[in-house]
Amino acid sequence: MADENVVYIGNKMVMSYVLSVVTQFNNANQVVVKARGKAISRAVDVVEIVRNRFMPEVKVKDIQIGTEEITGEEGTPIRLSTIEITLEK
Amino acid sequence: MADENVVYIGNKMVMSYVLSVVTQFNNANQVVVKARGKAISRAVDVVEIVRNRFMPEVKVKDIQIGTEEITGEEGTPIRLSTIEITLEK
Repeated sequence: MADENVVYIGNKMVMSYVLSVVTQFNNANQVVVKARGKAISRAVDVVEIVRNRFMPEVKVKDIQIGTEEITGEEGTPIRLSTIEITLEK
Repeated sequence: MADENVVYIGNKMVMSYVLSVVTQFNNANQVVVKARGKAISRAVDVVEIVRNRFMPEVKVKDIQIGTEEITGEEGTPIRLSTIEITLEK
């Protein structure tokens, strides 16, 4: 059993990520929710829904923000903001 | 001079909020960037641009997330995620 499980937030519905987080907590005491760009808002929604509706015992242990450089379609570098929210039960 | 200055992130362009943060640091050692809903991603962009391009000496002191209940157009309550990023120079 890994100590650190990661859920990457993309463009799917919020509830599918909520389900991923809750499922991963079955096998771990810590889950990290990661997102970049516009998905950052959704990552916060996911964490808040997990805590308010499904697992009130879960605490936000740490939040880190940063910048990642990815390569765009024509090879131009694009800077994207990132977030990593570490949850612990 | 207030010890805590707040910049609320809305729908304007990222650079106008970057300018607000940099300006507020002229009069304070601490600036709090607040946003809710979809503006959360923009708040992280603002902080990252301030730190990477304009004020590398600024540190992220604390990040808090939460939920706020606002009243929608027809009186129905709407839950919105919130973020507060405390910056310190």
